[in-house]
Amino acid sequence: MDTTGRTRQAVTAYIDSAERRDWESFGALLAEDMVYEMPQTRERIRGKAAFLRFNREYPGDWHLEVRRVVADGRHAAVWVDARVGAERQDACVWFEMSEQGLISQVTDYWPEAYEPPSGREHLVERW
Amino acid sequence: MDTTGRTRQAVTAYIDSAERRDWESFGALLAEDMVYEMPQTRERIRGKAAFLRFNREYPGDWHLEVRRVVADGRHAAVWVDARVGAERQDACVWFEMSEQGLISQVTDYWPEAYEPPSGREHLVERW
Repeated sequence: MDTTGRTRQAVTAYIDSAERRDWESFGALLAEDMVYEMPQTRERIRGKAAFLRFNREYPGDWHLEVRRVVADGRHAAVWVDARVGAERQDACVWFEMSEQGLISQVTDYWPEAYEPPSGREHLVERW
Repeated sequence: MDTTGRTRQAVTAYIDSAERRDWESFGALLAEDMVYEMPQTRERIRGKAAFLRFNREYPGDWHLEVRRVVADGRHAAVWVDARVGAERQDACVWFEMSEQGLISQVTDYWPEAYEPPSGREHLVERW
């Protein structure tokens, strides 16, 4: 498998193992010195141990499903359908892989719904 | 150039030509029946003509810069640094290309800053 194929497999397994709460498989995908960032809250977690704990402790009956994986060498982006109870939210997750094929950087965006500004109703439809 | 290379070139040119307000180059990248979606506001724009007008009329002294392009066959994701005056915002943009190599689907996310929930201060640092 080439680098892109290996990256695609790793980031897909990242979402799927988190959804299954299979923390052993999840941890096996991560570099020891990986860094996780959430730019919206300016939060950063350093290291696999803290990141595993963050995920294991994350509250709520959350569910994740891959909508799309885009893999390109040692980079990838995953478009995720997340759900907590009846609440749906999309996530955009950016990945970087180490030379060894482990996930070394994860950046999460959790965009919230909002009402559109006025003035463009003539161009758009709503759903 | 292979499909991935062609996709990478097109989505990079999409951001760069929008930044330059070069609407002729921008329009040349788009399929006539392209669809633009903003899931956060549940807005959709159908067709190149309306989408060009939406961009040309978009208010404010906005600036766009590519932070990262991830291209994969006829799919791509672009991580964008946007700026309006002194305000910075990140965007996540998902693309689909037509068989002819034109942009046929664009999905924009504009995640907003927010304060993190309490209870995870022991795992995170802030920046």
